[in-house]
Amino acid sequence: MRIALLGGTGDIGEGLALRFACDTDHEVVIGSRTAEKAETAAADYETRLDERGCSAAIESGENAAVVPGADVVVLSIPPYHVKETVETLADDLVQDQVLVTPAVGMKGDEDGLHYHPPSIGSVTELVADTAPERTPVVGAFHNLSAERLANLDADLDLDTLVVADDEAAKATVVELCAPVDGLRALDAGPLVNAPEVESVTPLLINVARYNEALVDVGVKYQ
Amino acid sequence: MRIALLGGTGDIGEGLALRFACDTDHEVVIGSRTAEKAETAAADYETRLDERGCSAAIESGENAAVVPGADVVVLSIPPYHVKETVETLADDLVQDQVLVTPAVGMKGDEDGLHYHPPSIGSVTELVADTAPERTPVVGAFHNLSAERLANLDADLDLDTLVVADDEAAKATVVELCAPVDGLRALDAGPLVNAPEVESVTPLLINVARYNEALVDVGVKYQ
Repeated sequence: MRIALLGGTGDIGEGLALRFACDTDHEVVIGSRTAEKAETAAADYETRLDERGCSAAIESGENAAVVPGADVVVLSIPPYHVKETVETLADDLVQDQVLVTPAVGMKGDEDGLHYHPPSIGSVTELVADTAPERTPVVGAFHNLSAERLANLDADLDLDTLVVADDEAAKATVVELCAPVDGLRALDAGPLVNAPEVESVTPLLINVARYNEALVDVGVKYQ
Repeated sequence: MRIALLGGTGDIGEGLALRFACDTDHEVVIGSRTAEKAETAAADYETRLDERGCSAAIESGENAAVVPGADVVVLSIPPYHVKETVETLADDLVQDQVLVTPAVGMKGDEDGLHYHPPSIGSVTELVADTAPERTPVVGAFHNLSAERLANLDADLDLDTLVVADDEAAKATVVELCAPVDGLRALDAGPLVNAPEVESVTPLLINVARYNEALVDVGVKYQ
């Protein structure tokens, strides 16, 4: 499969690019606001992969330029840019391209981070509401630590929950994850179940804050 | 420690009674709306424990009658009875008794269960708001499967998240759990962090529904 990681130069985009490139045969292409930024990041990732004996080519380009040809497009961007980005890309998305959103709305206070979804219920549902009707939207990767993903020395041994109304698109994302070492994708039902999935992200940040031993913590359902 | 499990005749009260009685030296006393119902359940638990070579005495009584002398009082009751129960018990709760709430507000639709907290933010915070000022309130055991707890043949190997504003009370609940095989209590911060903790309960029910292999599923943070 060919995966386009929009906003692939940082945060969870970086980690997904490294894991997909290292552990799978998927083609990885990272997008950014400028082609130069994407190219610099891709070169950095290739170097880091090469140092670990994972020689993989990572393509790059401006966000809109990396969409054509991708089977799966991942919106690795902050929640407050999601709506605008999907609107901008709407014409570039062709039939059967799967749009994946890992973003979560949160707000913090002195005690921790709290779930703060948009009024539609979740960022995942906002993306589904904004995307063209021909584009199946999948929520996934919400609860994975960007730092742990990007640290190729760290074992994952984690689950990611996948929500979608389109079963074929959901199966595509589960299949996408299957070859990644230590990553299990679990079905969490349709898009309406996204709020409970997204809400685990601030929870994990709180758990890490109050338990020193749990750095870059994730979840295993068992 | 002496643990009073109000509503200890069913759901999570049953499972906690069996696990605490089997794995720890805590005194377990179960409460119910009537002394007879509590007595019948206690006798049943003792028989089941005896069959497994865990001979333990389980005391019983009417809900209000089991509160005096308990170090920890667990409200193993449905969320819609919590406020009224705490109001009724207010005069019975003495200084330094820790009140623990595992209840979660949920509502279902055809796709799954969804988090549905009271307007104050969470059932945990509702209990804290209703309890006498002298009574420290701890949220815990929200995300444990009642069926898995009550099935003594099932390994736990699960975490429970603990929230409280009173650090001593929180430490008491962590200490309470420590001798239970396979149960790890993790600090999730103050009461204001309760919504994200409670929200994991409907999530787990959804994960179990959409993944046949995950029966009575729980969470491990790692």
